[in-house]
Amino acid sequence: MSRIAYVNGRYVPHADAAVHIEDRGYQLADGVYEVCEVAGGRLVDERLHLARLDRSLRELRIRWPMPPAALGVVMREVVRRNRVADGLVYLQVTRGVARRDHAFPAAAVPPSLVVTARSLPLAPREARARTGVSVITLPETRWARVDIKSVGLLPNVLAKQQARDAGAFEAWFVDGDGYVTEGASTNAWIVTAGGALVTRPADNAILRGVMRTVVVNVAQAVATPLEERRFTVAEALAAREAFLTSSTAAVTPIVKIDGANVGNGVPGPVAARLRSALCTAVEVAPAWSTGAGVAHI
Amino acid sequence: MSRIAYVNGRYVPHADAAVHIEDRGYQLADGVYEVCEVAGGRLVDERLHLARLDRSLRELRIRWPMPPAALGVVMREVVRRNRVADGLVYLQVTRGVARRDHAFPAAAVPPSLVVTARSLPLAPREARARTGVSVITLPETRWARVDIKSVGLLPNVLAKQQARDAGAFEAWFVDGDGYVTEGASTNAWIVTAGGALVTRPADNAILRGVMRTVVVNVAQAVATPLEERRFTVAEALAAREAFLTSSTAAVTPIVKIDGANVGNGVPGPVAARLRSALCTAVEVAPAWSTGAGVAHI
Repeated sequence: MSRIAYVNGRYVPHADAAVHIEDRGYQLADGVYEVCEVAGGRLVDERLHLARLDRSLRELRIRWPMPPAALGVVMREVVRRNRVADGLVYLQVTRGVARRDHAFPAAAVPPSLVVTARSLPLAPREARARTGVSVITLPETRWARVDIKSVGLLPNVLAKQQARDAGAFEAWFVDGDGYVTEGASTNAWIVTAGGALVTRPADNAILRGVMRTVVVNVAQAVATPLEERRFTVAEALAAREAFLTSSTAAVTPIVKIDGANVGNGVPGPVAARLRSALCTAVEVAPAWSTGAGVAHI
Repeated sequence: MSRIAYVNGRYVPHADAAVHIEDRGYQLADGVYEVCEVAGGRLVDERLHLARLDRSLRELRIRWPMPPAALGVVMREVVRRNRVADGLVYLQVTRGVARRDHAFPAAAVPPSLVVTARSLPLAPREARARTGVSVITLPETRWARVDIKSVGLLPNVLAKQQARDAGAFEAWFVDGDGYVTEGASTNAWIVTAGGALVTRPADNAILRGVMRTVVVNVAQAVATPLEERRFTVAEALAAREAFLTSSTAAVTPIVKIDGANVGNGVPGPVAARLRSALCTAVEVAPAWSTGAGVAHI
């Protein structure tokens, strides 16, 4: 558990970490977030996470709560104070505290910033990578701008719970045309009979996952063919492999979709190879650095 | 401004009213709300608001934070402590505080409850009813279950801001087939050349506004024909009148849509008649009553 949280300028004990009831994140889901993996005490792909945060904030016209380099320092300090070796750091920026009104508050209202960190044991994650996971499919119900990483996650919450109720790890959303968009908190991939990776283009219908970007780069580096296009559930079921990606799940094989086997129903070699290749592909920031690479975004 | 808020069992000064950073309302928009008008110190249509809250909670499998009658008592107490004569009471229920995870927390986690109240001057609302308001139209971007009154309001926030940027009071969402769904925080109505009221059926594409229900009842009472069906923007522009409804706006005429006049560009008689009829149609709870009618929902 996070023992110390950063909340609007102060490091506070987790139990006392609070935001005002009129924070627009609480009343209107008017905010964005990032979840960044911590490995060996270091932030993984910090630069990509902060670049995506920058995009989310711009799309919503929310100001940065502090310069990116300073945010990097806070993230490191929260990781350090919580003694996280392997885990995650969570950060959330909202449009601040103001009397409830749908329209934006005065420009002078400062955005809110919350940063937490916690350990996340590696063993269950590794176990899932070895055995593979199940997914269910559900109709896409989310809003039209899921490319913005907003805290408006209620449809994702309901989908994830439906997956859990069905004994599955993840739920894939399927759009009105029958194509998979993405999982409730992961991106979706298949491996064709010909050995090509297929994943949906990063348009407005999916979030451009940081791990998705890393895997795209890895695929190019190892000369694995990549097709950025939509795919159907039937195509996924007929695929040689399927897998999901996220910052904390990395590459995790999918062995069942709606109870039916993918391929032989066991994890395949392509997902395994990609997962192994990640350790050299991700960007690990030097411990306690000030995140110098971030100042340019 | 609300001076005293009710937060999870305590009446606290507004400035100190806070929720934990891991309240699922803050991190996941996993909660619902109601806004109930206060007129002459009394709750308006409390029974309908609590019935709708009941439905929202059931749809999301969130427990009542306390029995409905007790919630009625808290709402009255917050109104009283803030000395609100004309204004609103706001209540929010979330799935409670738990370590961040999309899926539901353990059943033992208690839901969170926040109640605030504040005065809302009548004069500007009456002025808008006299002069009418402008709306703009925007593509529907919201999720598939807007019939649940969730705090996931980011699309509504962006739409309302876009309306404000355009000098308009409200934004109407228009679905992929060209039909108006509803406003960012109001239901949408037109009056046909034949004098019939038209409003969209309360399916999953709109929120069943309490004021919408009241106006449906008023229309029946005064023998005004009512057609619950979808309508297009073109139909609205060609209509004799258009208006919007919400708990705090009651019936407010719309005189411009995307800059073009509705009818003669001035408020029409049907909206005015309905607005007048409301004062006898709404249910006003006796002041400081315990909301006995609520226990049955």
